[in-house]
Amino acid sequence: MSYSSKLIEKAVEEFSKLPSIGKKSAFRLVLHMIQKDKESVESFLHAIRNMKENLKECSTCFNLSDDVECAICSNIARDKTVLCVVESVRDVIAIEETQQYNGSYHVLGGVISPLEGIGVDDIRIAELIKRVHEANAKELIMALSPTIEGDTTVFYISKKLADTEVKISTLSRGVAFGSELEYTDEFTLGRSILSRVPYTQSSLK
Amino acid sequence: MSYSSKLIEKAVEEFSKLPSIGKKSAFRLVLHMIQKDKESVESFLHAIRNMKENLKECSTCFNLSDDVECAICSNIARDKTVLCVVESVRDVIAIEETQQYNGSYHVLGGVISPLEGIGVDDIRIAELIKRVHEANAKELIMALSPTIEGDTTVFYISKKLADTEVKISTLSRGVAFGSELEYTDEFTLGRSILSRVPYTQSSLK
Repeated sequence: MSYSSKLIEKAVEEFSKLPSIGKKSAFRLVLHMIQKDKESVESFLHAIRNMKENLKECSTCFNLSDDVECAICSNIARDKTVLCVVESVRDVIAIEETQQYNGSYHVLGGVISPLEGIGVDDIRIAELIKRVHEANAKELIMALSPTIEGDTTVFYISKKLADTEVKISTLSRGVAFGSELEYTDEFTLGRSILSRVPYTQSSLK
Repeated sequence: MSYSSKLIEKAVEEFSKLPSIGKKSAFRLVLHMIQKDKESVESFLHAIRNMKENLKECSTCFNLSDDVECAICSNIARDKTVLCVVESVRDVIAIEETQQYNGSYHVLGGVISPLEGIGVDDIRIAELIKRVHEANAKELIMALSPTIEGDTTVFYISKKLADTEVKISTLSRGVAFGSELEYTDEFTLGRSILSRVPYTQSSLK
């Protein structure tokens, strides 16, 4: 597109570098910026710069954090002996959204994947092992992707912790709430038949 | 959503103020910003600030411009006696994209709309009248929305210029190229039958 303005052209180019934003959407966003008052635009720019300059990684769990220790690790109401092991910060937010979990987290930063060249030293496994010992952790909840890579990572970590008392659990797998059996993949469906649970009034809640 | 970081929360809030960006997309964009290197983010912020600070309105046609006069008005190859009257800057870009037009523009900034409280003095009609006289314009192409408000605006401007020699034309209306007759609204279809054109080899090009 030709915008008859280099300034607009450059701004559109920058916006269209963002994920899932094409040239047309980028131009719509730029026009929005042009129409907004100066204070609103400044507030937008400031929020991004401020975040970029001040956001840290929590020194304990590697979650994104405003301080040296994140809001979850520094919350005394949360159980520090139960660690939920996740791949990324997105997963922390997804689990926090459920409001069903009151322990702590450990953000691995990925899963072991020989195909993508991610080995055991590229993700925070050593930090996890050290933390399990230091915090005297009772339980590790492995909330990793239900893939071969995720399963490999769980296996590796469980082997590394074989000499400890820590209990290792994984998320339950099966058919998702609200999904249609017809469209559930055969692997999941087969597995959920094999790992069927006795019916009680509360088991389907 | 809870992000365990005020910095992220604020950035997500700012991104979700943009048109057609919800909280989830905003968070995806924020994560993208977090992962990008500092220079890329700075370049993004700079492009927006630079545009916001330096973008002007062309003093002649009111198109957005880097200088006092826009790239179209200052282009000596463009016909200054043919003015295409449009509602907004978006329309200028849409028409420029067609590469079918070599005249100049006049951005009205809206159309007369009593319902929305937009009167003749709220859009740049006086500037247009003055310009027609000063530039000795030969033709005005009224490229306004095909709505009652657009038609009213065309009517008002044509009355105001009744004492001049300027030729006033509107965009042709009819069925769009590539559209299906079945789904064309009856008003457009009826009108395009009444204003049918004699067939020649070139008329369908």
